[in-house]
Amino acid sequence: MAKASLDVVGIGNAIVDVLAHAEDGFLQTHGLAKGAMTLVDADAAETLYAAMGPGVEMSGGSAANTLAGLASLGGRGAFIGKVRDDQLGAVFAHDIRAAGTSFETAFAAAGPPTARCLVLVTPDAQRTMQTFLGAAVDLGPEDVDPAVIESAEVTYLEGYLWDPPRAKQAFLKAAEIAHGAGRRVALSLSDPFCVERHRAEFRDLVENHVDILFANEIEIAALYETADFDAALAAVRGRCALVALTRSEKGSVVVAGQETHAVPAAPVDRVVDTTGAGDLYAAGFLYGAVRDFTPAECARLGGLAAAEAISHLGARPESSLAGLVTAARRPA
Amino acid sequence: MAKASLDVVGIGNAIVDVLAHAEDGFLQTHGLAKGAMTLVDADAAETLYAAMGPGVEMSGGSAANTLAGLASLGGRGAFIGKVRDDQLGAVFAHDIRAAGTSFETAFAAAGPPTARCLVLVTPDAQRTMQTFLGAAVDLGPEDVDPAVIESAEVTYLEGYLWDPPRAKQAFLKAAEIAHGAGRRVALSLSDPFCVERHRAEFRDLVENHVDILFANEIEIAALYETADFDAALAAVRGRCALVALTRSEKGSVVVAGQETHAVPAAPVDRVVDTTGAGDLYAAGFLYGAVRDFTPAECARLGGLAAAEAISHLGARPESSLAGLVTAARRPA
Repeated sequence: MAKASLDVVGIGNAIVDVLAHAEDGFLQTHGLAKGAMTLVDADAAETLYAAMGPGVEMSGGSAANTLAGLASLGGRGAFIGKVRDDQLGAVFAHDIRAAGTSFETAFAAAGPPTARCLVLVTPDAQRTMQTFLGAAVDLGPEDVDPAVIESAEVTYLEGYLWDPPRAKQAFLKAAEIAHGAGRRVALSLSDPFCVERHRAEFRDLVENHVDILFANEIEIAALYETADFDAALAAVRGRCALVALTRSEKGSVVVAGQETHAVPAAPVDRVVDTTGAGDLYAAGFLYGAVRDFTPAECARLGGLAAAEAISHLGARPESSLAGLVTAARRPA
Repeated sequence: MAKASLDVVGIGNAIVDVLAHAEDGFLQTHGLAKGAMTLVDADAAETLYAAMGPGVEMSGGSAANTLAGLASLGGRGAFIGKVRDDQLGAVFAHDIRAAGTSFETAFAAAGPPTARCLVLVTPDAQRTMQTFLGAAVDLGPEDVDPAVIESAEVTYLEGYLWDPPRAKQAFLKAAEIAHGAGRRVALSLSDPFCVERHRAEFRDLVENHVDILFANEIEIAALYETADFDAALAAVRGRCALVALTRSEKGSVVVAGQETHAVPAAPVDRVVDTTGAGDLYAAGFLYGAVRDFTPAECARLGGLAAAEAISHLGARPESSLAGLVTAARRPA
């Protein structure tokens, strides 16, 4: 097996976030499911946008955030995702490249505009997301370059890819190429509603196609239809080599075969906005995983990267994460 | 004279800011004039954008920021400025309306895209701006609705309007209508390089068309070609009714006829980004000026609004400024 030239290649929905502060009453008035990611069509996105407050635009997308975080840690990554050749598409491409991540997916020259996610941040720092997938629905297997997948230690896929119609084909193609090249495949379950929409397929993926699984405690409970974290943990054990379960302020739990490692959350002065917490946890964890960090060290680096993400508005790192690597390797 | 239904109507370049952190070395490498606003063409903007780090998009524009600040203070305002019917134009229109400011200027249906300003924030919190004027060059006198100007207590104009070819005609038309309706006209000198470009015209404006003048100490020194603040102050005294001169951490000085009021700067925990400091000072000052606050109270409210702006990234208020009004009216 050739040495990998990339740490991680991520495949995901290429999205520009529009972040705005909102009160809980605004979520209620507009019937929004707090804390969740809900898919909306262009009209619903327009209506909500017109009603919400002044926004800040920032590149987003779950796997794309992870790759930006990986680059900030000093890792080498590439991202595959679909934007239109419009202004927000140019913003997305600029930002991920400027973060240090390779991004060579062809822009769509027709069809819907670049995807956007309206992110409403409530005073409790929770984020509620309404996503118009736009051009992201055009991602297909033709966008997966086998050479890029083969060159990466890990192919990382977001569960959200199960929403647009053809992206799952891209996903499965990439997973097959990765395994054919002796590489690993990682998956994030993304969102509990996303798990509800695709439970049977996600269970099959976890059992048969994935080596590293990321989920938060609500998502893993949704996957195995239990309200109990320990039951969910028992259900997933043994189904893939490495499972990282995040629990917000309770830290995270890594399941590696029969071993279980609980790692406390990294301290945060003030939680401003939880957007990107899971994405950045995955960034730190994967950075460690491809460098043979212990599972607990991977979880610690994930927690440190997540702590940076939630200390400011937006998902992408505001300052370099490179200094976190050493901190994660110190004995806990 | 009919009672004004608006406090302020602002006319300015309608711009979306792209903010990114940069080191001083980056400014040197790209030959950028630190702290200044420099006009660039589309190609130069593209080249610089490709070289700079990941960005955050936020609506900007000097007078537009002032109107957003005025609305946040509880004032009633309208903005006149030109965007294209593109994605960034929609962002600009959404944000200023969502701030509570009326914005009814027709979007350009052809021609260059919505203006953008690449704002590089260095570790000392100073901002350096490269502006591609785009659709803003299409603003002309046909965009000035006399009824809106007549309905506003103050017509506020940014000096940057002297850069695009036809905007100054819009400016002069608006000033004439405002004075014809017994209203006041305010002007910001905007930027020392802008003053250099248009010195003779700006001197004539200040003397013959403007009732309230805003400038920082460098701009007023540039206008009267002196390096000495007191000499500049003496030169401007008597040329228009009310002159507010900002001096960064030294606060501001108001010249009202023969009176002079020096007001200290409002305290700031940490200066993060000076983008918008002058714009928000004008917002606070004008809010007071149309409510018969004393000159010192106007300056205090300006200073408080500016202090909020420099405590975070970006020019527009992050939280409601309404609470500042009472603080400004307390005896100093």
